Amino acid sequence: MNNLKNKKDQEYICRAKEVIPGTMYGHMSIQRQLPTGYPQFFERAENCRLWDVDGNEYIDFMSAYGPMILGYQHPVVEEAARRQSSKLETASGPAPVMVELAEQLVEQITHAKWAMFVKNGTDATTTCITIARAATHRKGILLAENAYHGSMPWCTPNQEGVVEGDRAHLLYYQYNHVESLLEAAERCKQDLAGIVVSAFKHDARVDQEMPTLEFAKAARQLCDANEAALILDDVRAGFRLSLDASWTLLGIQPDITAWGKALANGLSLSAVTGNENFRQAAASIFVTGSFWYQASPMAAALATLTLLEEAKAPEYLEKIGNQWRLGLSEQSQYHGIPIRQTGPVQMPMVLFEDDPDFEKGFQFCLNALEEGVYLHPWHNWFLSLAHTSETIEKALEATNHAFEKLAQSQK
Amino acid sequence: MNNLKNKKDQEYICRAKEVIPGTMYGHMSIQRQLPTGYPQFFERAENCRLWDVDGNEYIDFMSAYGPMILGYQHPVVEEAARRQSSKLETASGPAPVMVELAEQLVEQITHAKWAMFVKNGTDATTTCITIARAATHRKGILLAENAYHGSMPWCTPNQEGVVEGDRAHLLYYQYNHVESLLEAAERCKQDLAGIVVSAFKHDARVDQEMPTLEFAKAARQLCDANEAALILDDVRAGFRLSLDASWTLLGIQPDITAWGKALANGLSLSAVTGNENFRQAAASIFVTGSFWYQASPMAAALATLTLLEEAKAPEYLEKIGNQWRLGLSEQSQYHGIPIRQTGPVQMPMVLFEDDPDFEKGFQFCLNALEEGVYLHPWHNWFLSLAHTSETIEKALEATNHAFEKLAQSQK
Repeated sequence: MNNLKNKKDQEYICRAKEVIPGTMYGHMSIQRQLPTGYPQFFERAENCRLWDVDGNEYIDFMSAYGPMILGYQHPVVEEAARRQSSKLETASGPAPVMVELAEQLVEQITHAKWAMFVKNGTDATTTCITIARAATHRKGILLAENAYHGSMPWCTPNQEGVVEGDRAHLLYYQYNHVESLLEAAERCKQDLAGIVVSAFKHDARVDQEMPTLEFAKAARQLCDANEAALILDDVRAGFRLSLDASWTLLGIQPDITAWGKALANGLSLSAVTGNENFRQAAASIFVTGSFWYQASPMAAALATLTLLEEAKAPEYLEKIGNQWRLGLSEQSQYHGIPIRQTGPVQMPMVLFEDDPDFEKGFQFCLNALEEGVYLHPWHNWFLSLAHTSETIEKALEATNHAFEKLAQSQK
Repeated sequence: MNNLKNKKDQEYICRAKEVIPGTMYGHMSIQRQLPTGYPQFFERAENCRLWDVDGNEYIDFMSAYGPMILGYQHPVVEEAARRQSSKLETASGPAPVMVELAEQLVEQITHAKWAMFVKNGTDATTTCITIARAATHRKGILLAENAYHGSMPWCTPNQEGVVEGDRAHLLYYQYNHVESLLEAAERCKQDLAGIVVSAFKHDARVDQEMPTLEFAKAARQLCDANEAALILDDVRAGFRLSLDASWTLLGIQPDITAWGKALANGLSLSAVTGNENFRQAAASIFVTGSFWYQASPMAAALATLTLLEEAKAPEYLEKIGNQWRLGLSEQSQYHGIPIRQTGPVQMPMVLFEDDPDFEKGFQFCLNALEEGVYLHPWHNWFLSLAHTSETIEKALEATNHAFEKLAQSQK
């Protein structure tokens, strides 16, 4: 693929190799994450479209890995951010918009009586755990095996540079597996400070699973019985399934929730919300950051939340998500290439049957890329309000070719 | 002070009390940090001026606690950020500006052969430690007692919610105290992964100290002898003392450096730079964040670095810093109120003699606040390029009144 189509991208990759460890790090490293042929560097983004540095255009189904929920360059959000930053941005004190945004979250989110604002999703999950430990004066935290809660040493999926102490008092259960949850709590004995649950099981490389009511109830009951914190990690799923905490859909309220990604439509802002029981503990810990009080991402978040409500975002995303899922399903059957589509349609995971090394997935995604559709072979995709019914139709034309080419190569 | 002057501020504080734990958290909480009478919420900022929500105007000597190095609303930086964000901001891949900024840091910073970009200063210090451990396959990290390196559980000054494991393998020495450094290394035995040093001793509430050459050499030699990482925390001081790593002024090169605050003049961006010995380890760890590849703060950083170089920022800040220090010193003597001015003039710390509870400091700062000068009674201040000789003269008129009133109240 190192042809003219990727010429400038290859030049930047060569330069990056010199000055960035491993050429690129984290989830943005195409070399570690995606099949050869994917572009690494991008020039422009608008609505649900991306242009790489060589000018190739894509319909983007990764939506910046979540943050882009209204579409890139949303004029109302941009204007709200610009208006705030033209007055006050990062300063020696916060702007009033911080209070307004906290009020909005408290109004909008059932369990929320207070809010704190941080930068990274990891700041939010770490703060939740710290609050749970401060509130209970206990240490044990239960986590689902293989769940992603960020990239600090206590949670990063890669153990390089991580030491034992970083994960002391962390105990693991299997998502949706009540018995393993009870066992983990049992191992924790009297030391249970909190249980962390993802909105649904959205681990990379495997089928997604919605939480069962039985599992959610068991987690809630364990926390109630132990006066421990039920911590919902809604960083990835937040605002796509519900405009309330995602487990509200099950009728289960968390005690503390971590928010991030889509909150400010791409500007850097994450948040923690909690109920009355954890307010004092939240006030007792010391967390802060040089840019945590930056005002324009908060103004952007207020605008984003208003627009999401006006557009009934979860319902809209469900509608186009179903169109997308149905279309892919029909194509899969027509071309005789079985796939598994799992999790909520707003954040679809598409994996191929009999594809342990993702070879089919890689080939399919590369085929789609050549047709101008940007997908990911083993990470969930993210729909946005900029994905219209027409975009989905257009993308389905591309995936039809992608299936067709894959079917031919399988013969 | 709950008078008309702070009417709107008080209203916002009442609202914040309902929806933000402890009314405000972290270093932005005036209730925990500053004497009653300080405003909590701000409406506007420009150059080195701040306006609170009641319209009161201040010459700001906190500079957003560091980020503001060129002045609030710097048109060139704003334009660079705006131009980038109008094309690509947070997206499904990084923009070319990421490579350009990494190249700029590698060119500008003597020890730097590579750069990584993160959001918080704490992300940068945590990443440094993770890299040191990954490179050495050892665990021990030496830190100066009471030094601030961020607010994650491993480093936050407040122990609420922190558990033992978070600080396993951390050993403490006293800044500038060679013997205590050697002792800490001795306790670490064969397990020394790295030594973290601040650019200078800038702990809150106490006199600042520049590093002695003896101390810096000892730290460098310990790391060399053990093939451990000398980690410079330049988050707070970076770009004010030198446009290279701050210890370059002593002729000592760190292996890895954490940068933050002033890097993008207030936009949220921090960085890690390192030498060739630590490149592979930096590539081996998994760190990332939803907004770490956001492009406009990188464009702002490139513009900021260029402007800092053109303006010979450290020299300029030294010049006005000396004017400010000399003026305060003369006033202190004239009014018979002894003060201690410590650390580099670019980041002055002013403490009062015989003032164990900061009562004099609080009163002095409140007096200055009433005269329109925003100071901090126990945290270092930050000068910026927006502080002109005329600003300093104007501020000195205010501090003269502040000293005078303090002298009267002491009688």
